[in-house]
Amino acid sequence: MRSLRLAMAQINTTVGDLTDNADKILRYIDEARSLDADLVTFPEMAITGYPPEDLLLKPQFIQDNRKALQRVVEGCSGITAVVGFIDSGQDIYNAAAIIHDGEVAGVHHKNYLPNYGVFDENRYFQAGTDAPIFTINGIGVGVNICEDIWYATGPIISQAYGDAEVIININASPYHTGKGKFRERMLATRASDNAVIVSYTNLVGGQDELVFDGQSMIVDERGEVVARGKQFQEDLIVADLDVEAVFRTRLHDPRRRKEKLAFQQAQGAPKRIFVSPWVERRRKPLPPRCVEPLPPDAEVYEALVLGTHDYVRKTGFQKVVLGLSGGIDSSLTAVIAVDALGPENVLCVTMPSKFSSRGSIEDSEALAKNVGVKLLNIPIRDTYDAYLVALAEPFRGTEFGIAEENLQARIRGNLLMGLSNKFGWLVLTTGNKSETATGYSTLYGDMAGGFAVIKDVPKTLIYELARYRNRKAEWDIIPQSVIEKEPSAELKPDQRDIDTLPPYEKLDPVIHAYVVEDRSFEEMVAMGFDEAIVKKVITMVDRNEYKRRQAPPGIKITPRAFGRDRRLPIVNHYKSF
Amino acid sequence: MRSLRLAMAQINTTVGDLTDNADKILRYIDEARSLDADLVTFPEMAITGYPPEDLLLKPQFIQDNRKALQRVVEGCSGITAVVGFIDSGQDIYNAAAIIHDGEVAGVHHKNYLPNYGVFDENRYFQAGTDAPIFTINGIGVGVNICEDIWYATGPIISQAYGDAEVIININASPYHTGKGKFRERMLATRASDNAVIVSYTNLVGGQDELVFDGQSMIVDERGEVVARGKQFQEDLIVADLDVEAVFRTRLHDPRRRKEKLAFQQAQGAPKRIFVSPWVERRRKPLPPRCVEPLPPDAEVYEALVLGTHDYVRKTGFQKVVLGLSGGIDSSLTAVIAVDALGPENVLCVTMPSKFSSRGSIEDSEALAKNVGVKLLNIPIRDTYDAYLVALAEPFRGTEFGIAEENLQARIRGNLLMGLSNKFGWLVLTTGNKSETATGYSTLYGDMAGGFAVIKDVPKTLIYELARYRNRKAEWDIIPQSVIEKEPSAELKPDQRDIDTLPPYEKLDPVIHAYVVEDRSFEEMVAMGFDEAIVKKVITMVDRNEYKRRQAPPGIKITPRAFGRDRRLPIVNHYKSF
Repeated sequence: MRSLRLAMAQINTTVGDLTDNADKILRYIDEARSLDADLVTFPEMAITGYPPEDLLLKPQFIQDNRKALQRVVEGCSGITAVVGFIDSGQDIYNAAAIIHDGEVAGVHHKNYLPNYGVFDENRYFQAGTDAPIFTINGIGVGVNICEDIWYATGPIISQAYGDAEVIININASPYHTGKGKFRERMLATRASDNAVIVSYTNLVGGQDELVFDGQSMIVDERGEVVARGKQFQEDLIVADLDVEAVFRTRLHDPRRRKEKLAFQQAQGAPKRIFVSPWVERRRKPLPPRCVEPLPPDAEVYEALVLGTHDYVRKTGFQKVVLGLSGGIDSSLTAVIAVDALGPENVLCVTMPSKFSSRGSIEDSEALAKNVGVKLLNIPIRDTYDAYLVALAEPFRGTEFGIAEENLQARIRGNLLMGLSNKFGWLVLTTGNKSETATGYSTLYGDMAGGFAVIKDVPKTLIYELARYRNRKAEWDIIPQSVIEKEPSAELKPDQRDIDTLPPYEKLDPVIHAYVVEDRSFEEMVAMGFDEAIVKKVITMVDRNEYKRRQAPPGIKITPRAFGRDRRLPIVNHYKSF
Repeated sequence: MRSLRLAMAQINTTVGDLTDNADKILRYIDEARSLDADLVTFPEMAITGYPPEDLLLKPQFIQDNRKALQRVVEGCSGITAVVGFIDSGQDIYNAAAIIHDGEVAGVHHKNYLPNYGVFDENRYFQAGTDAPIFTINGIGVGVNICEDIWYATGPIISQAYGDAEVIININASPYHTGKGKFRERMLATRASDNAVIVSYTNLVGGQDELVFDGQSMIVDERGEVVARGKQFQEDLIVADLDVEAVFRTRLHDPRRRKEKLAFQQAQGAPKRIFVSPWVERRRKPLPPRCVEPLPPDAEVYEALVLGTHDYVRKTGFQKVVLGLSGGIDSSLTAVIAVDALGPENVLCVTMPSKFSSRGSIEDSEALAKNVGVKLLNIPIRDTYDAYLVALAEPFRGTEFGIAEENLQARIRGNLLMGLSNKFGWLVLTTGNKSETATGYSTLYGDMAGGFAVIKDVPKTLIYELARYRNRKAEWDIIPQSVIEKEPSAELKPDQRDIDTLPPYEKLDPVIHAYVVEDRSFEEMVAMGFDEAIVKKVITMVDRNEYKRRQAPPGIKITPRAFGRDRRLPIVNHYKSF
């Protein structure tokens, strides 16, 4: 009975690290071989890491990527591998090499280049125009890349009608909440539409603002998920594909057989590239392995942990430092950092001012103790007073206001950066998406730092994540008082977020409608949102583009984050109401 | 004798300001009409401003742009106008409306969408596929948009072979040094290749990091420039086009007549849209008007002045504030700001530390006096000491270093931002391209501010611009001592730039080769650059991507600025040597 043992190597690559990426690919090839796999697959652009952006405009980078691929080719004996790389000739292509026994048997060029959202692939690549079928182990295998499979009329059609029984789709699909389900539904539909087994190998790991979630999977010809890998971790998912079932299903479908004939008559038979013949191998069948997806709150949390870990480590830092205010944002950020890096690599600083409440300091101390991190206490009162003296002359006759509030936030930023410069610790910032959207934050103050862990997490979700983390710990790692207190920046007496912003449970849905969904003012009012709040939010979001432009990078977890997802001019006079 | 009086309205639009842009277009239509013009042309996307970026993803914005166009259409009686806007149907298009006498006679959709450098037009638009010819005043006129004319085999071919005698190309072409000449040469070649008069209407004004330089022009069928507008200013360039000369030239070219026939037989005759018949009008012929291009140093200087003016005014600010160090960068920035906004709108601050030399303060005072601006003196010594006390415990046992240097720069940043927040002044930063490239600057310190005037100007060019400005003034507005002193950050005793960086005359060419030209290490060494310097520069440029990502926007004046021109990942392990 024909079958194919497939190993999907869901690896964590690093952009530009051609040597390490190739080494890792070679290690996984060895492991797949030792497990008697016929075929091992790697993510899109596994050689270069994804996305390499304008590195692709450097001819030397393209050459070096080919050399790294060559090393992989030479190490690939006795097994077939599909490896993402950059192909080049008269132009460059986002490509998959089909490697067998020390030779490149063929190459697929991505047909559909995404150029929306966070993607700019038209900036770099020429699109491929065909989609050959490879005979691997005597079985027809169609290889395609990422976006290729999002089109119902894409390469999968000609490949399936050309008698491919297995589709290998290699990917670098960035995470956002809910995408896993959407992806799985699409893959199931493609598989059953085309009576084909679909294997989907995704990248895992953080790269700047993106997190790739892994969760590689295999869907059978009926659209059933028969294998699923871990989320947010490297994984090697090995499965025996029941190719005979594909053959049987197709035999039983006369309409499909008729349509195939018509398609082939119209388009011609697709190119077929021979890789290796069918060899009967005795091996013990593998049990199916299907990791269950995480529930929504755990999923977001793990995305933040992995994104933080990878940004810190891949930029070469060991330790991080952050300011604890006693509020929920910095508390959650600290816990995520500890989960990502270990308590020994996280330093917290409380920087009380004359406006800090006793509770804030106590809560910071409790949090630091709970997660086992060192807490420095650096009061800012005297430094603040020094500024007021220095500015006494120009500020004469003015009242306490935003300037004085921001001075304090910027002193804290300066202190954290001082520690960073002195000891080589990366500063984590603690602003959430509700603040980022409305500009309720101080540029060079609480926005000062190298990485903004929860930048794309709305405040209402911050609370959910805090509660999730406490549930997981089975005790209040984040003190209840932190969760229950009224949000305040504590930059003037009796300040409350609610004095400046709408209540978060009203604010967040409007931000979602405006920023993520690009809804118009009229639509939002029709959706039942309060008109005054909608106007306020639109105005705040639009006015603060300049501030976001200077914000540190942070992890995208929603369908549209502030970053390359959403490119708005700073000079922008458009008024939509 | 057939002729066409053409008015090119080189206007300064504002992104998103649909009402003001339409009002301005209507005013120029009136003016062109009063000058007896047959045809008036406006820049690419004149209705919306350019580039509107992701505003284009808002359906309401597209609708509102159509409404604004409709107002222009209604006000366009007795004259023909070509106006850039966003057309929409099943998709959206970068389009030119050909409007005559209160009606839209036809529309051209841009055929070639740039998706490189600063451009992302594939993100938004569907490309047009045809290029109709419009009969305006009885004369064949081909309309196309920007990138369309950069392709020798683009729409101009079918339009010229389809008997268009005039090509109207509307543009939003961002400035960089040397581009004007390159553009003019290309236009001259297109015109003589196709024996056609080419009119090129460019946008003028600043938009975020881009400056559009105007310099609209008309090139006759022999490739001679017959009209040229101002650079960096609004202008209405009116000229009588000698269409009979085109006819004569074509009659005298039997090869062209043969090729035209072959082309039309192969491609079919292009679509022709009638707009208005030939009407003999008596009017006094206009003298040719050809503004001479500025010399290179003046050109860059004016780009900086306009870019600064427009960013400040279009973001709604009246006044700016900047720190004067006594060095050449801040001195030049101050002079540019004064030229852009007037001395009454510029405030300078000297913020001496214990490491500031007496000369630095005196030079700052001299500069402020020379340009007639107010100078605040806010010493930072006591504030700095307050920080050292606050940090005494964590810093115990460490030596004075980068941390202490940056503290000072960040105190200055905090003071300037305090003044900004208190009085609503925009902070200008004063870092040059050599610093931006190498990261020789303090994040949240001297990099703190809303706009980075000279961010894309290499240090060696800074000197040239300073000398240019003094020559123009016919006295040393920028004191000679400022120009002659050795560059220093003055953040520690006896500090000199040369202790950290290669000398600027060696550094700048390497930055140009690496950043602007994307040369590889080996190429740069082969070009004769010192190997150690090349290695140092590559390392510094690569390592400081994170810093640039949080830098304020600044004016692009080179072919590749740090900004959306050059998109490199922060996490980037690529080693090219």
